[in-house]
Parts: sequence; C-alpha cells; structure tokens
Amino acid sequence: MELLFLGTGAGVPAKERNVSSVALQLLGERGATWLFDCGEATQHQILHTAIRPRRIEHIFITHLHGDHLFGLPGLLGSRSFQSGETPLTVFGPSGLRAFVETALAVSGTKLRYELNIVEIDEGVIFDDDRFTVIAKRLDHGMTSYGFRVVEKDLPGPLLVERLQALGVRPGPIYQEIKQGKTVVLADGTVLDGREFVGPPQKGRIVAVLGDTRFCEAAIELARDADVIVHEATFAAAEQRLAHDYFHSTATDAAEVARRAGAKRLILTHISSRYQGAAALQLVAEARSVFPNTELAADFASFSIPRG
Amino acid sequence: MELLFLGTGAGVPAKERNVSSVALQLLGERGATWLFDCGEATQHQILHTAIRPRRIEHIFITHLHGDHLFGLPGLLGSRSFQSGETPLTVFGPSGLRAFVETALAVSGTKLRYELNIVEIDEGVIFDDDRFTVIAKRLDHGMTSYGFRVVEKDLPGPLLVERLQALGVRPGPIYQEIKQGKTVVLADGTVLDGREFVGPPQKGRIVAVLGDTRFCEAAIELARDADVIVHEATFAAAEQRLAHDYFHSTATDAAEVARRAGAKRLILTHISSRYQGAAALQLVAEARSVFPNTELAADFASFSIPRG
Ligand SMILES: [Zn+2]
Ligand SMILES: [Zn+2]
Repeated sequence: MELLFLGTGAGVPAKERNVSSVALQLLGERGATWLFDCGEATQHQILHTAIRPRRIEHIFITHLHGDHLFGLPGLLGSRSFQSGETPLTVFGPSGLRAFVETALAVSGTKLRYELNIVEIDEGVIFDDDRFTVIAKRLDHGMTSYGFRVVEKDLPGPLLVERLQALGVRPGPIYQEIKQGKTVVLADGTVLDGREFVGPPQKGRIVAVLGDTRFCEAAIELARDADVIVHEATFAAAEQRLAHDYFHSTATDAAEVARRAGAKRLILTHISSRYQGAAALQLVAEARSVFPNTELAADFASFSIPRG
Repeated sequence: MELLFLGTGAGVPAKERNVSSVALQLLGERGATWLFDCGEATQHQILHTAIRPRRIEHIFITHLHGDHLFGLPGLLGSRSFQSGETPLTVFGPSGLRAFVETALAVSGTKLRYELNIVEIDEGVIFDDDRFTVIAKRLDHGMTSYGFRVVEKDLPGPLLVERLQALGVRPGPIYQEIKQGKTVVLADGTVLDGREFVGPPQKGRIVAVLGDTRFCEAAIELARDADVIVHEATFAAAEQRLAHDYFHSTATDAAEVARRAGAKRLILTHISSRYQGAAALQLVAEARSVFPNTELAADFASFSIPRG
C-alpha cells in the first residue's frame, strides 16, 4: 500500500506542481490502483510512473472543480486505447455523469471496458471483503467530499508450528482451526482453534480529503487514520484568504490531524505562491501543531506499512 | 507570423509528443495568438513557451476527437485565472458548445472575459480588415475541418522620396495619394496617386488541416499556400491502416501539397510507432513527392516570411 502523488498544486498547473491527483497503489492488496481526483494531464504524469492505466479500478473525484476533474475524459479514453478491458468505476458528486458522458459522446470515444459512474452521497460508497470506503461532505462552497479508505482486519495467521508440535498434520482441518473453531482429532483430542491462531492483522486507514476549510467532517474521516492527505493551499498568515476561498492553511490541516488522532499527515494542493523552499514554511507551521507532517510533491511516494 | 507547435502526436499523449495543438503567432500582425486544436495539456505545454494565454484571441478546433479537444476547458479557465480579460472566440464543429458549456457549468468555472463559441459550417468563418479564415470539411469519419488563413494584401508603401523630389510636403494630402487618388496641388499640378505608391505586399496563406484521409478539400484549402500543416499519422507502407482509420500517410500529405502548389509542407500528428529517427522516414517519403517538407516536433517553431 503506497500513496503516489501525481499532482500537488492548486487551481492551475505550474511547472513545479501539476493539478490534483494522487494514486493509492493497492498492488499487493488487490492488484489495483485507485485514483483520487484527476486534474488535467494526470495521464501525462502517469507516463512517468509505474502505474498501468489498465490496473486503475476506481477513481474517486472529491469535487468538480476543473483542477480535480478535467483529466478524466482523456484518461478514460487512453485506458481503452491501451487495452484496458476490466471494469472501471468513477465515484464523485452529482454532475460527474453529465460531464463524463458529454465528453465521451461529443468526442466519439468508445470504451472497450465497462465504465460505471456513481454519483455519490455521504456514507459507505464502496464495500467488499477487503476494503470499505466512506464519504463525507467537507466545506468548500461547492460539494466536496473526503474519503476514508478502511482496509479490513486480516485474520491472524495459523500457528502451524504449534500444531505440528502436537502432531496435527496439514489437511482440511487446518482451515477449520484457522477459523477459530473447536475440532476433535481422530484420537479424541479436543483443540480450541483460537489457541492456534495469531492475533489479527489490523487493517490500515487512509483518509484522502478534497478541498475544504477546516471542518469537523474532516476530523471524523481521519479518526485514527494511518495517513491523512489534506490540502494546505495557504500558509497560516493567509487564514483570511483561506477562509474566503473555502480552503485550508497548513495549520488547519495539522489541527485536523491532531484532533483526529491520526498517525501521519501529508500536505498537498499547495498554491504556486509557495515555490521551492517557500513550501517548507507550510510544513514547519503544520509541524508545530502535528509533528509527523510531510509535504507532497509531484511523483513523491509514501508507503503505508501495517501497524 | 510564426507557427509554434505545442503537440504533434496522434491519439494519446506520449513522452516525446503531446496530443494536438499548434499556435499561429500573429504578434506583429495583430498582437494575438491563434490556436488550432487544444488537446489535453496544451496549457501545460504553453508554460514552456512565450505564449501568453491572455493574448489568445481565437481557437479553431478541427474536430472533436479527444486528442484535439480535451485541453480546452482547462485552458479557458486558466486564461481567466491569469487575468485574461479580452474576448475569446472558439470555432469548431457542432457539439463544441455542449462540451464547453457542460465542462464550465459542472466545474463552476466563471470566466472574467467574453467567451464566444461558434459552431461552424463550411465557408468564411472569420473576416476582418486583415485576415480571412475559410473552413472546409475533410474526410475523417467524424466531421473534421481544415482551415485556410488568408492574410489580406497590404497596400504598397507611399513613395515619399519621389513626392519630396517634387516638393510635395507631408500633410493630409499624403493619405489621399497613398489611397491612389488623383490630387491637385496648390500650384495646379495634377498628381496621379498610383504613381507614388509601391506595389502591394502580398498577404500570406497558411493552411492548417484536421485529421483526414487524402482529399480534394485539403488541396483546395492549401491552394498556393505559403505553408500547409498536414497530418501524417502513418508511413506509406501503412496506407491500408491509414485508409481504414481515416488518416493520411506522409505521401498523402505530400501529394496534397504538390497538387495545391503550396510552397512548404509541415508534417504533424505523428503516430508514436515512429519514435525518434523512425519519424525521419516519414519526411523522406514525403520529400520524394514534395521536396520542401519538414517534420513538426513539440516546441518547434517555423517562421513564415512575406513573399
Ligand atoms: Zn477546489
Ligand atoms: Zn482524429
């Protein structure tokens, strides 16, 4: 599990930072890549990474501002051109369908794969045996969502050596023991499966938030998260500007991470007014509130270890 | 007058060539830039050039395939963000308005300038005292236009030395003479204005064509042109493929230039199957038919001198 940033700027593309997109690489977990936002030229950025468009399974659009959206039609078309054949689902606010369908229709783009467009509301928007994704509305003037990706806990590993020490040989009985059932061996011995299973592996939690002012919903989405990705369009001195434009300062982001009890904060959506070293000021401000803060950059990757 | 190529690839972006866009720089002629096509990340390419988005006066979209269109909403928005305030007109096939209006509406993009969208048909689509633009349908499966940009002839310069040799002094009378009128001086001398004006300066003709098979309309648009910009998606050996996908080979492009009596041919829209030196094969094939052929590259510029 790894976050790979594709665009970390705000509003308009700049040489240093492209507009918003970040990939959650779930190659080990499900052989898939999930994208959050898809600003213009996201597919161009992908050309410089190991991401394979045909592996992209879900795209979550936080909100419909152009710098988070306008790369979507091109990416959808190129995924088809590059032999993507598995289904793809795009989640996002109301209006997403009209935009995508109009773009594909006028351009005569025919996809070779099944495209699902899901206009979401708050709540669980995706759930399978490995992951749950929860959406909540933030505070950005236009509808903007944050996403909480929850990896389900994995059952503990079977303590094979302990079974072998008792002379229990591999077979279908191992499955039952692993599920924690009580089993009776051929010689009458009764085993409590729970004694032969290690502790469950805790699933990871990643919160990726759209543009927003400081808000309670962000804190709820990031509760106990391993990582929270939060916008920091402005420095603390521009609190007024941040508020007026429905954005956050670096300090706002840090305050969200702190109150949520998150483990780690990554700042993104950095205004081009903070170029090069000037962006380090944002990190410094955030760290004074939440020490484990890092700054995203285009093509920076952050692996998310278990536990 | 100069052509500056921003994207010269076909279909999908590649590291070497972005999707289609070319700028006709008319800074000396009208302080403006005209764009032809606006594939995704055209605004990103512009960041690496001297083009100022606020100077873009007209955008001509040849056809609505995504690789010629999907950069338009982002560019329109960024032009506003970067203080573009003068009107901008976008010309293109039917469907252009639905695409642009949907993209701007769902993204909440408010432009600070007047945007005119003109869904065109064949014929004169623009005309003022300096330029005429003529559109014609090509042969690309979907509606695809070629554009013939005609600079109007400039009246010849006033032969001031000849007038001064006769003792005619500067004044309002110079304007009348320059217009070729017959004037009577204070001493009764009659002057035929036409004798005091040099030969008119011939306007230039630039033909920029959308994707197409070899077709008569392309020849008509390029008649006696100073420059023709023509797609060459394939090499001659792939004539069959070119035909099936409604594209041209380099030889097709050269044949158009030759029959049109054009002065110079620039090949663009090069498939990524011809990378690096392989693209030179396309030029060689075209030159065997039309010697004055050049190959476009992203950021290559070609100045177009008078006469
Ligand atoms: Zn936004
Ligand atoms: Zn095309």
